[in-house]
Amino acid sequence: MPRMKAAIFVEPGRIVLDEKPIPDIGPLDALVRITTTTICGTDVHILKGEYPVARGLTIGHEPVGVIEKLGSAVQGYHEGQRVIAGAITPSGHSAACLCGCHSQDGAGTKHGWKPLGGWRFGNTIDGCQAEFVRVPDALANLAPVPDGLTDEQVLMCPDIMSTGFSGAESGRIRIGDTVAVFAQGPIGLCATAGARLMGATTIIAVESVPARMEMARRMGADHVVDFTRADPVEEIMRLTDGRGVDVSIEALGRQETFEAALRVLRPGGTLSSLGVYSGDLRIPLDGFLAGLGDHTIRTTLCPGGKERMRRLMEAIASGRVDTQPLVTHRFKLDRIEEAYDLFGHQRDGVLKVAITP
Amino acid sequence: MPRMKAAIFVEPGRIVLDEKPIPDIGPLDALVRITTTTICGTDVHILKGEYPVARGLTIGHEPVGVIEKLGSAVQGYHEGQRVIAGAITPSGHSAACLCGCHSQDGAGTKHGWKPLGGWRFGNTIDGCQAEFVRVPDALANLAPVPDGLTDEQVLMCPDIMSTGFSGAESGRIRIGDTVAVFAQGPIGLCATAGARLMGATTIIAVESVPARMEMARRMGADHVVDFTRADPVEEIMRLTDGRGVDVSIEALGRQETFEAALRVLRPGGTLSSLGVYSGDLRIPLDGFLAGLGDHTIRTTLCPGGKERMRRLMEAIASGRVDTQPLVTHRFKLDRIEEAYDLFGHQRDGVLKVAITP
Amino acid sequence: MPRMKAAIFVEPGRIVLDEKPIPDIGPLDALVRITTTTICGTDVHILKGEYPVARGLTIGHEPVGVIEKLGSAVQGYHEGQRVIAGAITPSGHSAACLCGCHSQDGAGTKHGWKPLGGWRFGNTIDGCQAEFVRVPDALANLAPVPDGLTDEQVLMCPDIMSTGFSGAESGRIRIGDTVAVFAQGPIGLCATAGARLMGATTIIAVESVPARMEMARRMGADHVVDFTRADPVEEIMRLTDGRGVDVSIEALGRQETFEAALRVLRPGGTLSSLGVYSGDLRIPLDGFLAGLGDHTIRTTLCPGGKERMRRLMEAIASGRVDTQPLVTHRFKLDRIEEAYDLFGHQRDGVLKVAITP
Amino acid sequence: MPRMKAAIFVEPGRIVLDEKPIPDIGPLDALVRITTTTICGTDVHILKGEYPVARGLTIGHEPVGVIEKLGSAVQGYHEGQRVIAGAITPSGHSAACLCGCHSQDGAGTKHGWKPLGGWRFGNTIDGCQAEFVRVPDALANLAPVPDGLTDEQVLMCPDIMSTGFSGAESGRIRIGDTVAVFAQGPIGLCATAGARLMGATTIIAVESVPARMEMARRMGADHVVDFTRADPVEEIMRLTDGRGVDVSIEALGRQETFEAALRVLRPGGTLSSLGVYSGDLRIPLDGFLAGLGDHTIRTTLCPGGKERMRRLMEAIASGRVDTQPLVTHRFKLDRIEEAYDLFGHQRDGVLKVAITP
Repeated sequence: MPRMKAAIFVEPGRIVLDEKPIPDIGPLDALVRITTTTICGTDVHILKGEYPVARGLTIGHEPVGVIEKLGSAVQGYHEGQRVIAGAITPSGHSAACLCGCHSQDGAGTKHGWKPLGGWRFGNTIDGCQAEFVRVPDALANLAPVPDGLTDEQVLMCPDIMSTGFSGAESGRIRIGDTVAVFAQGPIGLCATAGARLMGATTIIAVESVPARMEMARRMGADHVVDFTRADPVEEIMRLTDGRGVDVSIEALGRQETFEAALRVLRPGGTLSSLGVYSGDLRIPLDGFLAGLGDHTIRTTLCPGGKERMRRLMEAIASGRVDTQPLVTHRFKLDRIEEAYDLFGHQRDGVLKVAITP
Repeated sequence: MPRMKAAIFVEPGRIVLDEKPIPDIGPLDALVRITTTTICGTDVHILKGEYPVARGLTIGHEPVGVIEKLGSAVQGYHEGQRVIAGAITPSGHSAACLCGCHSQDGAGTKHGWKPLGGWRFGNTIDGCQAEFVRVPDALANLAPVPDGLTDEQVLMCPDIMSTGFSGAESGRIRIGDTVAVFAQGPIGLCATAGARLMGATTIIAVESVPARMEMARRMGADHVVDFTRADPVEEIMRLTDGRGVDVSIEALGRQETFEAALRVLRPGGTLSSLGVYSGDLRIPLDGFLAGLGDHTIRTTLCPGGKERMRRLMEAIASGRVDTQPLVTHRFKLDRIEEAYDLFGHQRDGVLKVAITP
Repeated sequence: MPRMKAAIFVEPGRIVLDEKPIPDIGPLDALVRITTTTICGTDVHILKGEYPVARGLTIGHEPVGVIEKLGSAVQGYHEGQRVIAGAITPSGHSAACLCGCHSQDGAGTKHGWKPLGGWRFGNTIDGCQAEFVRVPDALANLAPVPDGLTDEQVLMCPDIMSTGFSGAESGRIRIGDTVAVFAQGPIGLCATAGARLMGATTIIAVESVPARMEMARRMGADHVVDFTRADPVEEIMRLTDGRGVDVSIEALGRQETFEAALRVLRPGGTLSSLGVYSGDLRIPLDGFLAGLGDHTIRTTLCPGGKERMRRLMEAIASGRVDTQPLVTHRFKLDRIEEAYDLFGHQRDGVLKVAITP
Repeated sequence: MPRMKAAIFVEPGRIVLDEKPIPDIGPLDALVRITTTTICGTDVHILKGEYPVARGLTIGHEPVGVIEKLGSAVQGYHEGQRVIAGAITPSGHSAACLCGCHSQDGAGTKHGWKPLGGWRFGNTIDGCQAEFVRVPDALANLAPVPDGLTDEQVLMCPDIMSTGFSGAESGRIRIGDTVAVFAQGPIGLCATAGARLMGATTIIAVESVPARMEMARRMGADHVVDFTRADPVEEIMRLTDGRGVDVSIEALGRQETFEAALRVLRPGGTLSSLGVYSGDLRIPLDGFLAGLGDHTIRTTLCPGGKERMRRLMEAIASGRVDTQPLVTHRFKLDRIEEAYDLFGHQRDGVLKVAITP
């Protein structure tokens, strides 16, 4: 049985590169040879034991690669074709999917809904920080990479860009909106780009790391508030002349940013939340206008599926947005443990790493 | 100067019937002679000093009456015409109104948005627990009562029914949805009726007062869970066979109900919140799926304006819903202090009182 | 090879009952033994040669039955289970499906969109006017029938009720809307029921056949206009006091009804079209307000998939709607040619026929 | 009584500059001294007698100016302030306005809906091709011009840009959409800019005038199809690899463009129509997929009101779009008859003219 290298969760604190068999595939699957992948903040949560996964699982949910083999029922693709798949790989046939809620895909469950059920790679099945990955429900999930786009150009599509853009989309941003984006890590930066792409005319990013502040401007922010120098709520109210924002996007997952995102909203505004929280959240009575402010709070898990991937790659191919600058460091798969160390500690101004087997 | 009787906020703990001048009107106003009005839970908050208003203010925001006089610029109505006006009386011309967010009307403010700004009666201007009330921006707010409807039949329209229905509407209920409604006071009962009217096919009401439980069934609930006999979250999960609900409506304004409303939601579901909260709220991490559940939380303040009122009265005139049974007690205006006492202490199975000058 | 009886399209003018092999199934399919099915107006178009299908095809797209056999990859069901499947059987994995547009499912095509592509039964694959039918993509399409519902109670779900309700849904009917429904055949009657279920408070049905007029009232119409006695546009304008309707639903497929449906719309209203047209349509300049009326015209093809079917059956199980009265005649499969004759000529007050193998 | 110069409709074929009294204003009005205005295609229709208005009416609905005088009830502005008002000047208080359908404002009518009722300037009341204009319902309609923007920079906001952008908005364009825009006159060019601003990633403009084709690229088109060199339907299908577009925008008002806009739509797509048609339209059966294509056709009349104007000016102030290049010619008001001649005959590559009193 041919073997491959893979980054495996051993126990809290330890993700190691090891060997395991190249996956078998069933009739609906595809085997993809990974050419580039990356590490996500969620993987660091897994590493730290904050998000539990099975021991021995291959980590990683952002695959760029080449079709090695197609399941017997998978038509419309060919071996050797360059593809990506989303971090979320919906089945398409559960009740959740049929309702358009692919991320909460409950295929195989009694009712067809499962919290986070669409997230399988590196969560409930082996992921893509490896030489090969099995892509389930390949017909719904394999998205061909347009000619002319490099691996690194599309590397943000499976998760970072899909999640970040969804922050803008779930905020239902309209032409002329004023938008605040809290935190400018990779996802926040893509939320900024998404807000710009949807027609927001004033975009205020909140961040304190200089390189990220600069990147925020590059991705479309009109103002960048350094929260270490001024209270971001006060500063945003000042910038909006006391009006507040139409939409605020939370892209960190902390009480402070969630609360600030609520406090800067005008009545009737929408808080679009992308963060992964690690404790109960508190909604301040005043910021919530005692429940009478016609507010909307909406959370979104990374949209997946091949059509989503196609659209994101289109945004890149058409020159509307360029996420490649988010790739700040590059590692061979052999050195992925070093990459985890760098990325997990946010050293050396890292935004995202590219991992190549 | 002719005088009239009015229920006036004197100080926390004291709303008294007193005399004050019949209001003057400006060119855009109407003077309405009240024929029937009622007391709202919010008025009890004002009485207790929990919601601050100016001393000397006439309380009340649910007017049914007859046009006594029209401002010089108000056309299309005639004196003697039977009308209602919503609890919320938008101007129609602020930025908030032009965005369709009439409850947060910021007419007269710099930016055109003001928290709860559309709520003026008994809040920022004199209300309608009186013999007469001045209706501002009459062209936007006077809604003629269809022939054949009695005062009591339309008495819930200005606030209770508008708010309750908005709980269903903001939940975007669709045909075939399963809906839970937490608390079956007057607003919760109207939320139940609204959910039924929008096509929910399983409606689960949560309540413990027997008369309200019975009324819940009458307004459209398929199941009524007595939260004193069973944990409502467990019971709703049992009734939905573990699936949870598509939409949950909070109609009380407490941490327990808010939290339960979140816990019974399926992933991707909507929590539509109507309650007026009196402290910070806590969002439990697990119920919120750590921010990854594609949830929507939406708050709504009573929609107002004459077109809203027309539609609600249509729902009554067409026989689709009957809210008159919510009127359980009747008082003359002279005895409104007794009415406050009864209603404020929820004695004698009171749901709503009708007050007639 | 075991054989079965099936209604087969031979040539324009001839659908005959014949024998053919019981279908084989693949890993994603299910074989369903039909217990009840029906004939659709579309089948009559096929019979007449107006809608072309392959010679030898089994006709019929409204199956109620029992699972006879499951494909190797189909889990979560069991043989002997009572099920229905929609007229539209989406794959769930095409671009169209991933966009929520399951009826235009382009599975297997280059781009994933195909006009009417989700409609397969009795169109591009063998249908269900037979003893057995192969259900493709069974995981997306098999919907268990709730205990206690008879075949005839759910017989309208696969097409008539799904299509009719979608007329109301695509009209985005809101509480308090005034709605006109043109034609009260089976689909129009379900559109009327759907409008009622979504909260329309004035529903005006247009029809001339007395039994259908009566049924329209039973399904929820407040007024029924007999177009042979009065001009329906004038009559609807009279009934709405000159205002027009918020939503009009076309349920016949003719120029006259389409045009009338547009003429009765208030500015800003929506024409929801369900009809299958057989020629170019003309939009009258005046009814269209020269293109400046903020109108929406929306067409909808029967929504399918198991979740849709579940919801429709819920509407029946909960007592919200009862479509069984639409079944006016019953035939054994052996006598299906007679059934076509009766139904095709709309003899004897027929609305829908039940066919039982 | 002080007099002013104004462009007046005398009879079909004749709009002349004449003198008439400076308008009086009522308590809700403002008098604005025009500093810049322009001529619209609709004005040319009026000139030709194709759109009937009262003889003696001042024409023009695109005002940029300075507040000369405020009505007694108009607060929050000051004399001397630079403002614009939209072509559509809603009252804010009619049923239509309260439903968010401001362009069909039926203030003063029985039901509150009136076709095109929000369009008053140069249609039902005196317009702004004059030294002064009376702005009705000033509180809803006066929009201050941000410092730093010139008259010409905001001159497209009242109509051209509001209408053009609404073509994209009514199409509900999403990130990643492919969009076709038929005709690249001033409104079509703004539709192109709007599509770009909302995140369309492939924009195909159809035009044949070289200067307009070039401007189309500048406003955001990725491809420009010259319909005199290739069939635009075929060309768009080729460019989209046979898929068709998600949204098509009609910006001319002719049968050919309407029909082509329908034919290039993928199933489930939206045709957003901006054109003013002058005859019945024909919907081709095949392009309409016989009414089974899940299509939406939506028409939109220029959105107005001060908040709309604010948002459009924000789009300009933030540098998101620049519509000034559409101003190709400049005239003094004294020479407006020449301007009509040039603009009406589309001579000299004219896109829009600036008229300054």
